[in-house]
Amino acid sequence: MRAVVARRRQLSVEEIDEPVPGAGDVLVSVRACGICGSDLHTLDHAEHLAEVGAAMGADLAFDPQGDYVLGHEWCAEVLDLGSGSDGAPVKPGDLVVSVPYLLRGDVLIPLGFSNDLPGGFAERMLLSSALCLPVPNGLDHRRAALTEPMAVGLHTIARASLRDGDATVVVGCGPIGLAIIAWLAARGVETIVASDFSAQRRALASAMGAHEVVDPREEPVVDAWRRVDGLRPLVIFEAVGVPGMLDQAVFDAPARSRIVVAGVCMQPDTFRPLIAVIKELDLHFVYAYDADEFAATLRSIAEGEVDVTPLITGTVGFEGVADAFTTLRRADDHVKVLVEPDGPSTVTPISPTDAQQ
Amino acid sequence: MRAVVARRRQLSVEEIDEPVPGAGDVLVSVRACGICGSDLHTLDHAEHLAEVGAAMGADLAFDPQGDYVLGHEWCAEVLDLGSGSDGAPVKPGDLVVSVPYLLRGDVLIPLGFSNDLPGGFAERMLLSSALCLPVPNGLDHRRAALTEPMAVGLHTIARASLRDGDATVVVGCGPIGLAIIAWLAARGVETIVASDFSAQRRALASAMGAHEVVDPREEPVVDAWRRVDGLRPLVIFEAVGVPGMLDQAVFDAPARSRIVVAGVCMQPDTFRPLIAVIKELDLHFVYAYDADEFAATLRSIAEGEVDVTPLITGTVGFEGVADAFTTLRRADDHVKVLVEPDGPSTVTPISPTDAQQ
Repeated sequence: MRAVVARRRQLSVEEIDEPVPGAGDVLVSVRACGICGSDLHTLDHAEHLAEVGAAMGADLAFDPQGDYVLGHEWCAEVLDLGSGSDGAPVKPGDLVVSVPYLLRGDVLIPLGFSNDLPGGFAERMLLSSALCLPVPNGLDHRRAALTEPMAVGLHTIARASLRDGDATVVVGCGPIGLAIIAWLAARGVETIVASDFSAQRRALASAMGAHEVVDPREEPVVDAWRRVDGLRPLVIFEAVGVPGMLDQAVFDAPARSRIVVAGVCMQPDTFRPLIAVIKELDLHFVYAYDADEFAATLRSIAEGEVDVTPLITGTVGFEGVADAFTTLRRADDHVKVLVEPDGPSTVTPISPTDAQQ
Repeated sequence: MRAVVARRRQLSVEEIDEPVPGAGDVLVSVRACGICGSDLHTLDHAEHLAEVGAAMGADLAFDPQGDYVLGHEWCAEVLDLGSGSDGAPVKPGDLVVSVPYLLRGDVLIPLGFSNDLPGGFAERMLLSSALCLPVPNGLDHRRAALTEPMAVGLHTIARASLRDGDATVVVGCGPIGLAIIAWLAARGVETIVASDFSAQRRALASAMGAHEVVDPREEPVVDAWRRVDGLRPLVIFEAVGVPGMLDQAVFDAPARSRIVVAGVCMQPDTFRPLIAVIKELDLHFVYAYDADEFAATLRSIAEGEVDVTPLITGTVGFEGVADAFTTLRRADDHVKVLVEPDGPSTVTPISPTDAQQ
């Protein structure tokens, strides 16, 4: 079958072995799989990932310097069930999503970050029937594929432990920043101020529910919050994840604010602890989500509590994935590009109507 | 009157103007005033303090590059009350402590960090009658002088929001680390593991209530915690405050721990956010205390709920303060050295019996 293979910082479309479902596995046909910032990070920072993994003493089955097939934000159609899948909650023909892991005994293999099993940038892949969730309510495969990044946003909000009356600032309106905004709006948070360099992303932030959006070159986002609200306590969501952003957030934050770090900065980063001390800041670092949050996210999308349609800005076939990565590294126009096995050979904008098909 | 004047990174004993109490002021004779790590920091990092202050847009009345008299951990005897002090809670002859501020209209002038008013390394100083607390219960002036650093410890514990069953690790057993240990023990925390390079400080940590103490060159403190307890959740108190300590704490911390940063690192510091993200760590930065915590600390010391006697390791007169700073920069033998106007000309160890006189 065809897949997009990552090897030494390059992506190429290749024929790889067809996966064969074992006991408890589900063979699926991938319908759509989003490109995530962590896919770019993994490809671009393989050495640093390996170094941190080794330093942490983690027994990483995944070697980011070997070959692998990325993709952990998929929606797929069930083709076949392996043995021992009696009572599985899914059947051939079902659309499914799943947390991106395959159960092997008591080991969880991270799908999309494995040298042995393909992720979602492949025609077919294996899932664990115990982890599959059928897509409910007639939700289309494209919006269902947004479950994973939206679950990150939901978990980020949960980690913020918001209290009534908290105001919020969201720094960076990429997929995670926009997911955060969507959940904050769904929760009824009264003040959501967002910033991004991109006019298109700022427009999307407004569409997702931000009350004020600014270009940080024109007005620092915390100044914008002071202009429209200025009441504490403030929770700042850092959703960019490049060196220097944390120091900026610490510097900009009002005293006693909380900074929720959702952006993943891959490199060592420098900040001024004295400022964090004097302001008595709290920093909360955020990673992924749990299975309940993933399921709740799917339900919320399917029931229309959050509308992910504006986030889906492009589609691309396997041949165009390498170019799509290049486009996304420059960022600013696209938010979520979905890789679809039969997609177009270059990244093609997708309209809100198409995004629901 | 005599005072220890700080000027261009040097300390010298000089004659300065006698303070004259205005409305609401109290003129006091300093009996003892502890040397704090922040005194050393202020003298050694004046430029960086000024730079951070300016960057934060703070209207700092204090210029650390000008002349000033340090000292913010005093116990003093009331000599005279200024006008408008009817109903003041203190009278001449009373021993008093106070949060280290003088009220001037609605401005709080930080005593010990002021170019206009002397701090506690002077024969006499001005306090605000509204902020003075009489020392209760016959408590001696030396232990009463520990109110301020112990209040920092109490506030640090409060910021940690400890829950029943939390285990704790304290990195660094200087005055703040030991104060933290004392409060953790007073609170009945079941697991307190502490680390310090100094054998004397480790012995003090045990005396203050640590259940296990280690030399980090022999066993990393989190490993020691795993050996004696190993149950989560863990709260790590960072009480050293030099570059690299935060990265080490992030690296050592088990997933989902909280790191309470009580050590004040004056320089920009570098850490690996990716590790904090993967572990979903919380960082809580801590500064000072509030007036209620200060009063509660005095009461707890006076009522014997915490015993600060072991922390008082030395006494010195004004002439020996410069040498005392040099000794404390090397650290390791002393914990709290009290400056006393009639003290010895060099830092002199003080026995637990003497510490209570």
